[in-house]
Amino acid sequence: MDAILSGVYDGVLTYGALREYGDFGIGTFAGLDGEMVGLNGDFYQVKADGIAYLVNDSMETPFACVTFFDVDREVVLPGGVDYGQLEEFLDGILPTGNIFYAIKIEGNFNYMKTRSVPGQKKPYPPLVEVTKTQPTFEFKDVDGTIVGFRCPAYVAGVNVIGYHLHFLTEDRDSGGHVLEFTVTEATTYVDYTSEFLMILPGEGSDFYHIDLTADKQEELEQAEK
Amino acid sequence: MDAILSGVYDGVLTYGALREYGDFGIGTFAGLDGEMVGLNGDFYQVKADGIAYLVNDSMETPFACVTFFDVDREVVLPGGVDYGQLEEFLDGILPTGNIFYAIKIEGNFNYMKTRSVPGQKKPYPPLVEVTKTQPTFEFKDVDGTIVGFRCPAYVAGVNVIGYHLHFLTEDRDSGGHVLEFTVTEATTYVDYTSEFLMILPGEGSDFYHIDLTADKQEELEQAEK
Repeated sequence: MDAILSGVYDGVLTYGALREYGDFGIGTFAGLDGEMVGLNGDFYQVKADGIAYLVNDSMETPFACVTFFDVDREVVLPGGVDYGQLEEFLDGILPTGNIFYAIKIEGNFNYMKTRSVPGQKKPYPPLVEVTKTQPTFEFKDVDGTIVGFRCPAYVAGVNVIGYHLHFLTEDRDSGGHVLEFTVTEATTYVDYTSEFLMILPGEGSDFYHIDLTADKQEELEQAEK
Repeated sequence: MDAILSGVYDGVLTYGALREYGDFGIGTFAGLDGEMVGLNGDFYQVKADGIAYLVNDSMETPFACVTFFDVDREVVLPGGVDYGQLEEFLDGILPTGNIFYAIKIEGNFNYMKTRSVPGQKKPYPPLVEVTKTQPTFEFKDVDGTIVGFRCPAYVAGVNVIGYHLHFLTEDRDSGGHVLEFTVTEATTYVDYTSEFLMILPGEGSDFYHIDLTADKQEELEQAEK
Protein backbone atom coordinates (compact mmCIF):
# COMPACT_ATOMS: atom_id res chain seq x y z
CA MET A 1 0.00 0.00 0.00
CA ASP A 2 2.89 2.37 0.74
CA ALA A 3 4.15 1.74 -2.80
CA ILE A 4 0.74 2.78 -4.22
CA LEU A 5 0.90 5.95 -2.12
CA SER A 6 4.33 6.58 -3.68
CA GLY A 7 2.96 6.29 -7.24
CA VAL A 8 4.05 2.74 -8.13
CA TYR A 9 1.10 1.95 -10.45
CA ASP A 10 2.50 -0.44 -13.07
CA GLY A 11 0.65 -3.76 -13.27
CA VAL A 12 2.57 -6.65 -11.68
CA LEU A 13 0.00 -9.48 -11.60
CA THR A 14 -2.69 -10.40 -14.14
CA TYR A 15 -6.29 -10.84 -13.05
CA GLY A 16 -6.02 -14.37 -14.43
CA ALA A 17 -3.30 -15.04 -11.84
CA LEU A 18 -5.08 -13.11 -9.07
CA ARG A 19 -8.15 -15.32 -9.56
CA GLU A 20 -6.14 -18.25 -8.14
CA TYR A 21 -6.10 -16.47 -4.76
CA GLY A 22 -9.75 -15.49 -4.39
CA ASP A 23 -13.23 -14.90 -5.79
CA PHE A 24 -13.92 -11.78 -3.70
CA GLY A 25 -12.00 -8.58 -3.14
CA ILE A 26 -10.94 -5.08 -4.01
CA GLY A 27 -8.01 -3.41 -5.73
CA THR A 28 -6.98 -1.26 -8.65
CA PHE A 29 -5.55 -1.55 -12.18
CA ALA A 30 -2.34 -0.79 -14.09
CA GLY A 31 -1.94 3.01 -14.20
CA LEU A 32 -4.47 3.27 -11.34
CA ASP A 33 -7.23 3.04 -13.95
CA GLY A 34 -10.31 2.64 -11.74
CA GLU A 35 -11.56 0.78 -8.69
CA MET A 36 -11.83 -3.01 -8.68
CA VAL A 37 -14.68 -4.97 -7.11
CA GLY A 38 -14.58 -8.78 -7.14
CA LEU A 39 -17.74 -10.66 -6.20
CA ASN A 40 -18.64 -14.36 -6.68
CA GLY A 41 -15.64 -14.81 -8.99
CA ASP A 42 -16.55 -11.89 -11.29
CA PHE A 43 -14.15 -8.94 -11.29
CA TYR A 44 -15.35 -5.46 -12.27
CA GLN A 45 -13.48 -2.27 -13.12
CA VAL A 46 -15.32 0.90 -12.10
CA LYS A 47 -13.66 3.52 -14.28
CA ALA A 48 -13.59 7.31 -13.86
CA ASP A 49 -16.88 7.51 -15.83
CA GLY A 50 -18.56 5.65 -12.97
CA ILE A 51 -19.36 2.63 -15.14
CA ALA A 52 -18.49 -0.94 -14.10
CA TYR A 53 -16.77 -2.94 -16.86
CA LEU A 54 -16.13 -6.69 -16.66
CA VAL A 55 -12.38 -7.32 -16.17
CA ASN A 56 -10.40 -9.31 -18.73
CA ASP A 57 -8.00 -11.97 -17.31
CA SER A 58 -5.06 -10.41 -19.19
CA MET A 59 -5.47 -7.05 -17.41
CA GLU A 60 -2.96 -6.34 -14.63
CA THR A 61 -3.03 -4.90 -11.14
CA PRO A 62 -0.39 -3.14 -8.99
CA PHE A 63 -2.45 -3.74 -5.82
CA ALA A 64 -5.34 -6.01 -4.93
CA CYS A 65 -6.60 -7.87 -1.88
CA VAL A 66 -8.71 -11.01 -2.44
CA THR A 67 -9.97 -14.09 -0.63
CA PHE A 68 -12.27 -17.05 -1.18
CA PHE A 69 -15.27 -15.78 0.74
CA ASP A 70 -16.81 -18.10 3.37
CA VAL A 71 -19.41 -16.76 5.77
CA ASP A 72 -18.39 -17.06 9.43
CA ARG A 73 -20.85 -14.51 10.78
CA GLU A 74 -24.09 -13.08 9.43
CA VAL A 75 -25.77 -10.07 10.95
CA VAL A 76 -28.71 -7.90 9.90
CA LEU A 77 -27.82 -4.21 10.05
CA PRO A 78 -30.17 -1.76 11.74
CA GLY A 79 -31.73 0.64 9.15
CA GLY A 80 -30.22 4.13 9.09
CA VAL A 81 -26.69 2.95 9.87
CA ASP A 82 -23.97 5.05 8.19
CA TYR A 83 -20.26 4.27 7.52
CA GLY A 84 -19.02 5.43 10.93
CA GLN A 85 -21.79 3.58 12.77
CA LEU A 86 -21.11 0.41 10.75
CA GLU A 87 -17.45 0.47 11.84
CA GLU A 88 -18.46 0.94 15.47
CA PHE A 89 -21.15 -1.76 15.22
CA LEU A 90 -18.83 -4.36 13.64
CA ASP A 91 -15.93 -3.53 15.97
CA GLY A 92 -18.36 -4.27 18.82
CA ILE A 93 -19.37 -7.75 17.62
CA LEU A 94 -16.18 -9.11 16.00
CA PRO A 95 -14.10 -11.39 18.27
CA THR A 96 -10.88 -9.35 18.01
CA GLY A 97 -9.34 -6.41 16.18
CA ASN A 98 -6.16 -8.43 15.58
CA ILE A 99 -7.11 -10.68 12.65
CA PHE A 100 -8.30 -9.95 9.08
CA TYR A 101 -11.96 -9.83 8.07
CA ALA A 102 -13.51 -9.96 4.62
CA ILE A 103 -16.79 -8.04 4.69
CA LYS A 104 -19.79 -8.29 2.35
CA ILE A 105 -22.87 -6.13 2.86
CA GLU A 106 -25.86 -6.93 0.65
CA GLY A 107 -29.02 -4.86 0.56
CA ASN A 108 -30.54 -1.51 -0.18
CA PHE A 109 -28.79 1.75 0.54
CA ASN A 110 -30.79 4.89 1.09
CA TYR A 111 -27.63 6.82 0.11
CA MET A 112 -24.28 5.77 -1.32
CA LYS A 113 -21.35 7.96 -2.36
CA THR A 114 -18.38 6.45 -4.18
CA ARG A 115 -15.33 7.66 -6.07
CA SER A 116 -13.12 6.33 -8.78
CA VAL A 117 -9.81 7.56 -10.22
CA PRO A 118 -8.75 8.19 -13.83
CA GLY A 119 -5.87 6.20 -15.36
CA GLN A 120 -2.47 7.87 -14.92
CA LYS A 121 0.55 8.23 -17.20
CA LYS A 122 4.24 8.12 -16.21
CA PRO A 123 5.78 9.82 -14.36
CA TYR A 124 2.99 8.79 -12.01
CA PRO A 125 1.89 11.35 -9.41
CA PRO A 126 1.47 10.12 -5.78
CA LEU A 127 -2.01 8.80 -4.87
CA VAL A 128 -2.81 11.80 -2.69
CA GLU A 129 -2.38 14.07 -5.77
CA VAL A 130 -4.59 11.84 -7.96
CA THR A 131 -7.45 11.74 -5.45
CA LYS A 132 -7.54 15.55 -5.11
CA THR A 133 -9.59 15.70 -8.33
CA GLN A 134 -11.35 12.31 -8.05
CA PRO A 135 -14.78 11.98 -9.71
CA THR A 136 -17.45 11.03 -7.15
CA PHE A 137 -20.82 9.36 -7.72
CA GLU A 138 -24.00 9.52 -5.67
CA PHE A 139 -26.73 6.91 -5.59
CA LYS A 140 -30.15 7.14 -3.90
CA ASP A 141 -32.21 4.10 -2.91
CA VAL A 142 -29.76 1.73 -4.60
CA ASP A 143 -29.57 -2.08 -4.37
CA GLY A 144 -26.08 -3.49 -4.34
CA THR A 145 -23.19 -5.04 -2.46
CA ILE A 146 -20.36 -3.55 -0.43
CA VAL A 147 -17.16 -5.64 -0.77
CA GLY A 148 -14.12 -5.06 1.40
CA PHE A 149 -11.87 -5.85 4.31
CA ARG A 150 -10.99 -4.84 7.83
CA CYS A 151 -7.22 -5.12 8.42
CA PRO A 152 -5.49 -4.94 11.81
CA ALA A 153 -3.48 -1.82 12.75
CA TYR A 154 -0.15 -3.70 12.74
CA VAL A 155 -0.22 -4.09 8.93
CA ALA A 156 -0.03 -0.32 8.34
CA GLY A 157 2.27 0.09 5.35
CA VAL A 158 1.23 -3.26 3.90
CA ASN A 159 -2.50 -2.66 3.48
CA VAL A 160 -5.22 -0.13 4.33
CA ILE A 161 -5.80 -0.54 8.07
CA GLY A 162 -9.33 -0.56 9.45
CA TYR A 163 -12.21 -0.73 6.96
CA HIS A 164 -11.62 -0.45 3.20
CA LEU A 165 -14.84 -0.91 1.20
CA HIS A 166 -15.83 -0.81 -2.47
CA PHE A 167 -19.39 -0.95 -3.89
CA LEU A 168 -21.08 -2.65 -6.83
CA THR A 169 -24.70 -2.02 -7.80
CA GLU A 170 -27.01 -5.05 -8.02
CA ASP A 171 -27.30 -4.61 -11.80
CA ARG A 172 -23.44 -4.60 -12.02
CA ASP A 173 -23.51 -1.26 -13.87
CA SER A 174 -21.70 1.02 -11.43
CA GLY A 175 -19.96 1.32 -8.07
CA GLY A 176 -16.55 2.50 -6.80
CA HIS A 177 -14.51 3.12 -3.66
CA VAL A 178 -17.00 3.78 -0.82
CA LEU A 179 -16.87 7.26 0.74
CA GLU A 180 -20.25 7.46 2.51
CA PHE A 181 -23.49 5.50 2.80
CA THR A 182 -26.66 5.02 4.77
CA VAL A 183 -28.30 1.59 5.00
CA THR A 184 -32.02 1.13 4.32
CA GLU A 185 -31.87 -2.59 4.98
CA ALA A 186 -28.85 -4.80 4.54
CA THR A 187 -27.20 -7.94 5.80
CA THR A 188 -23.50 -8.09 6.65
CA TYR A 189 -21.55 -11.31 6.06
CA VAL A 190 -18.10 -11.59 7.64
CA ASP A 191 -15.32 -14.05 6.77
CA TYR A 192 -12.87 -14.41 9.70
CA THR A 193 -9.36 -14.71 8.24
CA SER A 194 -6.22 -15.71 10.15
CA GLU A 195 -3.83 -16.24 7.24
CA PHE A 196 -2.39 -13.45 5.14
CA LEU A 197 -0.29 -14.00 2.02
CA MET A 198 1.54 -11.06 0.47
CA ILE A 199 3.00 -11.38 -3.04
CA LEU A 200 5.43 -8.58 -3.85
CA PRO A 201 6.33 -7.21 -7.31
CA GLY A 202 9.28 -8.86 -9.05
CA GLU A 203 12.71 -7.54 -10.07
CA GLY A 204 12.46 -4.79 -12.69
CA SER A 205 9.45 -3.20 -10.97
CA ASP A 206 9.59 0.40 -9.73
CA PHE A 207 8.85 -1.23 -6.36
CA TYR A 208 12.55 -2.17 -6.15
CA HIS A 209 13.67 1.45 -6.41
CA ILE A 210 11.50 3.44 -4.00
CA ASP A 211 12.10 4.39 -0.39
CA LEU A 212 9.53 2.58 1.75
CA THR A 213 10.97 3.48 5.15
CA ALA A 214 8.78 6.54 5.85
CA ASP A 215 5.46 6.41 7.74
CA LYS A 216 2.72 7.18 5.19
CA GLN A 217 -0.33 6.73 7.43
CA GLU A 218 -1.45 10.35 7.28
CA GLU A 219 -1.14 10.44 3.48
CA LEU A 220 -3.17 7.23 3.25
CA GLU A 221 -5.99 8.62 5.36
CA GLN A 222 -6.08 11.67 3.08
CA ALA A 223 -6.16 9.53 -0.09
CA GLU A 224 -8.90 7.18 1.13
CA LYS A 225 -11.38 9.98 1.94
CA MET B 1 6.10 -9.60 16.75
CA ASP B 2 4.14 -6.88 18.58
CA ALA B 3 2.25 -9.66 20.40
CA ILE B 4 5.57 -11.17 21.58
CA LEU B 5 6.62 -7.74 22.83
CA SER B 6 3.34 -7.64 24.76
CA GLY B 7 4.04 -10.98 26.48
CA VAL B 8 1.87 -13.32 24.39
CA TYR B 9 4.10 -16.40 24.74
CA ASP B 10 1.72 -19.38 24.64
CA GLY B 11 2.50 -21.88 21.90
CA VAL B 12 0.09 -21.71 18.96
CA LEU B 13 1.72 -23.93 16.31
CA THR B 14 3.65 -27.19 16.73
CA TYR B 15 7.09 -27.59 15.22
CA GLY B 16 5.64 -30.54 13.32
CA ALA B 17 3.24 -28.11 11.61
CA LEU B 18 5.88 -25.38 11.21
CA ARG B 19 8.09 -27.85 9.33
CA GLU B 20 5.56 -27.79 6.46
CA TYR B 21 6.53 -24.14 5.82
CA GLY B 22 10.29 -24.33 5.85
CA ASP B 23 13.56 -26.09 6.65
CA PHE B 24 15.41 -22.94 7.73
CA GLY B 25 14.59 -20.19 10.19
CA ILE B 26 14.44 -18.64 13.62
CA GLY B 27 11.90 -18.25 16.38
CA THR B 28 11.12 -19.06 19.97
CA PHE B 29 9.16 -21.58 22.09
CA ALA B 30 6.07 -21.75 24.29
CA GLY B 31 6.76 -19.65 27.39
CA LEU B 32 9.64 -17.98 25.51
CA ASP B 33 11.82 -20.93 26.51
CA GLY B 34 14.93 -20.27 24.44
CA GLU B 35 16.03 -19.27 20.94
CA MET B 36 15.20 -21.43 17.93
CA VAL B 37 17.59 -22.09 15.04
CA GLY B 38 16.40 -24.17 12.08
CA LEU B 39 19.00 -25.38 9.58
CA ASN B 40 18.72 -28.03 6.83
CA GLY B 41 15.41 -29.24 8.31
CA ASP B 42 16.78 -29.70 11.84
CA PHE B 43 15.34 -27.41 14.51
CA TYR B 44 17.32 -26.60 17.66
CA GLN B 45 16.35 -24.98 20.96
CA VAL B 46 19.14 -22.94 22.55
CA LYS B 47 17.99 -22.75 26.17
CA ALA B 48 19.06 -20.31 28.90
CA ASP B 49 21.95 -22.70 29.77
CA GLY B 50 23.41 -21.95 26.34
CA ILE B 51 23.01 -25.54 25.17
CA ALA B 52 21.33 -26.44 21.85
CA TYR B 53 18.72 -29.22 22.19
CA LEU B 54 17.08 -30.95 19.24
CA VAL B 55 13.43 -29.85 18.98
CA ASN B 56 10.62 -32.38 19.24
CA ASP B 57 7.78 -32.05 16.65
CA SER B 58 5.17 -31.82 19.42
CA MET B 59 6.76 -28.70 20.93
CA GLU B 60 4.99 -25.42 20.18
CA THR B 61 5.98 -21.90 19.19
CA PRO B 62 4.29 -18.51 19.65
CA PHE B 63 6.53 -16.93 16.97
CA ALA B 64 8.75 -18.29 14.24
CA CYS B 65 9.85 -17.29 10.76
CA VAL B 66 10.86 -20.04 8.33
CA THR B 67 11.45 -20.69 4.63
CA PHE B 68 12.72 -23.40 2.32
CA PHE B 69 16.20 -22.05 1.72
CA ASP B 70 17.37 -21.68 -1.90
CA VAL B 71 20.57 -19.80 -2.68
CA ASP B 72 20.05 -16.80 -4.97
CA ARG B 73 23.28 -15.03 -4.14
CA GLU B 74 26.56 -16.23 -2.66
CA VAL B 75 29.26 -13.85 -1.45
CA VAL B 76 32.51 -14.32 0.47
CA LEU B 77 32.73 -11.92 3.39
CA PRO B 78 35.90 -9.91 3.98
CA GLY B 79 37.68 -11.06 7.19
CA GLY B 80 37.23 -8.76 10.17
CA VAL B 81 33.66 -7.80 9.29
CA ASP B 82 31.45 -7.19 12.33
CA TYR B 83 27.62 -7.09 12.66
CA GLY B 84 27.26 -3.41 11.70
CA GLN B 85 29.62 -3.78 8.75
CA LEU B 86 27.79 -6.91 7.57
CA GLU B 87 24.49 -4.99 7.50
CA GLU B 88 26.11 -2.17 5.53
CA PHE B 89 27.84 -4.61 3.16
CA LEU B 90 24.69 -6.63 2.40
CA ASP B 91 22.50 -3.51 2.06
CA GLY B 92 24.99 -2.37 -0.57
CA ILE B 93 24.79 -5.52 -2.72
CA LEU B 94 21.15 -6.63 -2.37
CA PRO B 95 18.86 -5.52 -5.22
CA THR B 96 16.33 -3.68 -3.00
CA GLY B 97 15.45 -3.06 0.64
CA ASN B 98 11.78 -3.76 -0.14
CA ILE B 99 11.63 -7.58 -0.27
CA PHE B 100 12.44 -10.30 2.27
CA TYR B 101 15.80 -12.06 2.45
CA ALA B 102 16.74 -15.28 4.21
CA ILE B 103 20.41 -15.11 5.20
CA LYS B 104 22.84 -17.93 5.98
CA ILE B 105 26.45 -17.22 6.93
CA GLU B 106 28.75 -20.24 7.22
CA GLY B 107 32.30 -20.05 8.43
CA ASN B 108 34.60 -19.23 11.29
CA PHE B 109 33.98 -16.39 13.66
CA ASN B 110 36.83 -14.79 15.52
CA TYR B 111 34.27 -13.60 18.08
CA MET B 112 30.58 -14.37 18.61
CA LYS B 113 28.27 -13.13 21.37
CA THR B 114 24.77 -14.55 21.71
CA ARG B 115 21.95 -14.49 24.22
CA SER B 116 19.08 -16.73 25.14
CA VAL B 117 16.09 -16.26 27.44
CA PRO B 118 14.74 -18.43 30.26
CA GLY B 119 11.22 -19.92 30.04
CA GLN B 120 8.54 -17.68 31.58
CA LYS B 121 5.45 -18.41 33.67
CA LYS B 122 2.07 -16.66 33.51
CA PRO B 123 1.33 -13.82 33.95
CA TYR B 124 4.04 -13.33 31.31
CA PRO B 125 6.20 -10.20 31.60
CA PRO B 126 6.76 -8.15 28.40
CA LEU B 127 9.82 -9.14 26.30
CA VAL B 128 11.75 -6.02 27.23
CA GLU B 129 11.53 -7.07 30.93
CA VAL B 130 12.68 -10.63 30.19
CA THR B 131 15.71 -9.54 28.17
CA LYS B 132 16.93 -7.20 30.96
CA THR B 133 18.44 -10.22 32.72
CA GLN B 134 19.20 -12.36 29.64
CA PRO B 135 22.11 -14.83 29.88
CA THR B 136 24.75 -14.09 27.23
CA PHE B 137 27.38 -16.41 25.76
CA GLU B 138 30.75 -15.62 24.20
CA PHE B 139 32.60 -17.76 21.69
CA LYS B 140 36.15 -17.26 20.38
CA ASP B 141 37.38 -18.76 17.10
CA VAL B 142 34.17 -20.71 16.61
CA ASP B 143 32.92 -22.56 13.51
CA GLY B 144 29.21 -22.33 12.86
CA THR B 145 26.30 -20.88 10.94
CA ILE B 146 24.33 -17.67 11.30
CA VAL B 147 20.66 -18.17 10.33
CA GLY B 148 18.25 -15.30 9.91
CA PHE B 149 16.31 -12.80 7.87
CA ARG B 150 16.28 -9.23 6.65
CA CYS B 151 12.71 -7.86 6.63
CA PRO B 152 11.59 -4.59 4.97
CA ALA B 153 10.70 -1.59 7.14
CA TYR B 154 7.02 -1.69 6.15
CA VAL B 155 6.44 -4.91 8.13
CA ALA B 156 7.24 -3.24 11.47
CA GLY B 157 4.73 -4.70 13.93
CA VAL B 158 4.58 -7.98 12.02
CA ASN B 159 8.22 -9.04 12.21
CA VAL B 160 11.64 -7.75 13.28
CA ILE B 161 12.60 -5.22 10.63
CA GLY B 162 16.14 -5.14 9.28
CA TYR B 163 18.47 -7.99 10.22
CA HIS B 164 17.46 -10.64 12.80
CA LEU B 165 20.09 -13.35 13.19
CA HIS B 166 20.53 -16.48 15.34
CA PHE B 167 23.65 -18.68 15.57
CA LEU B 168 24.33 -22.40 15.76
CA THR B 169 27.80 -23.84 16.32
CA GLU B 170 29.09 -26.33 13.74
CA ASP B 171 28.98 -29.14 16.33
CA ARG B 172 25.28 -28.21 17.01
CA ASP B 173 26.02 -27.84 20.74
CA SER B 174 25.31 -24.17 21.32
CA GLY B 175 24.24 -20.86 19.80
CA GLY B 176 21.51 -18.26 20.44
CA HIS B 177 20.23 -14.86 19.32
CA VAL B 178 23.18 -12.99 17.79
CA LEU B 179 24.28 -9.80 19.60
CA GLU B 180 27.78 -9.26 18.19
CA PHE B 181 30.33 -11.04 16.01
CA THR B 182 33.49 -10.66 13.98
CA VAL B 183 34.12 -12.83 10.94
CA THR B 184 37.41 -14.67 10.44
CA GLU B 185 36.32 -16.17 7.15
CA ALA B 186 32.75 -16.87 6.11
CA THR B 187 30.44 -17.13 3.12
CA THR B 188 27.03 -15.50 3.02
CA TYR B 189 24.20 -17.18 1.15
CA VAL B 190 21.07 -15.11 0.46
CA ASP B 191 17.62 -16.36 -0.55
CA TYR B 192 15.60 -13.56 -2.26
CA THR B 193 11.98 -13.88 -1.10
CA SER B 194 8.99 -12.04 -2.60
CA GLU B 195 6.16 -13.94 -0.90
CA PHE B 196 5.28 -13.64 2.75
CA LEU B 197 2.70 -15.80 4.51
CA MET B 198 1.56 -14.87 8.01
CA ILE B 199 -0.42 -17.39 10.08
CA LEU B 200 -2.04 -15.80 13.13
CA PRO B 201 -3.01 -17.50 16.42
CA GLY B 202 -6.54 -18.94 16.59
CA GLU B 203 -9.53 -18.04 18.74
CA GLY B 204 -8.89 -18.67 22.44
CA SER B 205 -5.35 -17.29 22.22
CA ASP B 206 -4.28 -14.29 24.31
CA PHE B 207 -3.57 -12.75 20.90
CA TYR B 208 -7.31 -12.04 20.56
CA HIS B 209 -7.38 -9.95 23.71
CA ILE B 210 -4.42 -7.58 23.52
CA ASP B 211 -4.18 -4.05 22.18
CA LEU B 212 -1.94 -4.09 19.09
CA THR B 213 -2.56 -0.50 17.99
CA ALA B 214 0.51 1.08 19.65
CA ASP B 215 3.88 1.55 17.92
CA LYS B 216 6.33 -0.80 19.65
CA GLN B 217 9.40 -0.18 17.50
CA GLU B 218 11.48 1.39 20.28
CA GLU B 219 10.66 -1.45 22.69
CA LEU B 220 11.63 -3.98 20.00
CA GLU B 221 15.02 -2.35 19.43
CA GLN B 222 15.64 -2.48 23.20
CA ALA B 223 14.65 -6.17 23.41
CA GLU B 224 16.76 -7.30 20.44
CA LYS B 225 20.02 -5.83 21.76
